[in-house]
Amino acid sequence: MYSIGIDIGSVASKAVVFDGEKVIAKVILPTGWSPRETGEKILECLLAEAKIERDQIKTITGTGYGRVALSFIDKKVTEITCHGVGAHFLDPEVRTVIDIGGQDSKVIKLEEKGNVIDFLMNDKCAAGTGRFLQVMAHALEIDISELSEVAEGATPKNINSMCTVFAESEVVSLMAEGASKESIAAGLLQSVANKTYSLASKVGVENKVFFSGGVSKNPLLKEYLGEKLGIEIYTSSMAQFMGAIGAAVIGYK
Amino acid sequence: MYSIGIDIGSVASKAVVFDGEKVIAKVILPTGWSPRETGEKILECLLAEAKIERDQIKTITGTGYGRVALSFIDKKVTEITCHGVGAHFLDPEVRTVIDIGGQDSKVIKLEEKGNVIDFLMNDKCAAGTGRFLQVMAHALEIDISELSEVAEGATPKNINSMCTVFAESEVVSLMAEGASKESIAAGLLQSVANKTYSLASKVGVENKVFFSGGVSKNPLLKEYLGEKLGIEIYTSSMAQFMGAIGAAVIGYK
Ligand code: SF4
Repeated sequence: MYSIGIDIGSVASKAVVFDGEKVIAKVILPTGWSPRETGEKILECLLAEAKIERDQIKTITGTGYGRVALSFIDKKVTEITCHGVGAHFLDPEVRTVIDIGGQDSKVIKLEEKGNVIDFLMNDKCAAGTGRFLQVMAHALEIDISELSEVAEGATPKNINSMCTVFAESEVVSLMAEGASKESIAAGLLQSVANKTYSLASKVGVENKVFFSGGVSKNPLLKEYLGEKLGIEIYTSSMAQFMGAIGAAVIGYK
Repeated sequence: MYSIGIDIGSVASKAVVFDGEKVIAKVILPTGWSPRETGEKILECLLAEAKIERDQIKTITGTGYGRVALSFIDKKVTEITCHGVGAHFLDPEVRTVIDIGGQDSKVIKLEEKGNVIDFLMNDKCAAGTGRFLQVMAHALEIDISELSEVAEGATPKNINSMCTVFAESEVVSLMAEGASKESIAAGLLQSVANKTYSLASKVGVENKVFFSGGVSKNPLLKEYLGEKLGIEIYTSSMAQFMGAIGAAVIGYK
């Protein structure tokens, strides 16, 4: 029997199949305008990917902001709990999870067994989230996935405005003044690292630190954040699926 | 002899001529990309408008964020001080100034003589400033000057996101769902009123309250803010010139 975890985020939806020991299939799709339709679609894709039938599924557990829209799930669990369980599953030594998603960021502290002991979340301000980088990549006329690559090796240009709206104007001015895209891109990643640092400082960071969420795919941002925190930061190719993994693990029990 | 006050704001630059008793000329221009050039231009226009020569001017006092770029001024005074003196000049009974400009907002408390006893400023977040309304007017495909007119009489649609970036997406979704421009415009003005209310509450508001800055030209926003604060709010056609007037009055002394 299998357990499925579905994490409907504001930007990306993630789903995994868990067999009690390991993740045997994973799917990621843009959430788009309808969390409900995306949820149905992702379940369909996931079953095809895993080559299993619906009746082989013991439980389907939903998490993420869009979980409320899913009618076919057996259980709903908050993102924070799922992130904790998912991180503990990926690496039992993790004590701090820094998750930067498309529209929010969170810092979660775990105890030895993966239970959440404290957390702080920003979902009110676009600064320091994937949305900030999306707006800035657009201003720089590059794709968001190219940011780290473009910035690699450049001396970061200081971006004074923390606010997404004001920083966007600042980027446009810097480009007009002839600053290089490379240095601006580096400065923008540093801005997100700084914003994340202030969130993390409020909760307190303990070893081992795991970086997850879609924005964790920026190696340079991970580096800047590690420098700011004075600590080594880990991530994984499965980092974006952490919430879904947590949901699947919880559902299996 | 005359005194000139020039207030170079982030969006609009204002200048007045003061003869020791009253304001005899005023000019407003967009600040644009160069506070220095705008400062020179506005001085030229102002002298023409007042029909006076440069040598009839006793002092030129600069204020506003762009004052540092002005080379021809005799004196620089902070915006907060100038707003206090300007408000006191316009109406000696004013004890609280709520100023919402193009990119910032401030609440200033005055004592009887117009000296500043406390103030709070937001210049870090675009929400609750003219910039917020500018982004939203663009999303609604109307001019920022039409907001109050469009919203008049409509039941405000609740805008959940305080953040400019998230609220912009919300407005686009609301329009796609068929909500009326009128109700969205009213909701947006209410959002700025709410944000201003929380700033004002932190400082404490005392009668008489004067609303200034470019955004004060929205009668409906003034109404919403008055309702939230449970207090009557005053403004004037000279409200946008308050900083410049304060600078001119200070310079005259
Ligand atoms: S600082 Fe900018 S990005 Fe953050 S809430 Fe304010 S408007 Fe939004």
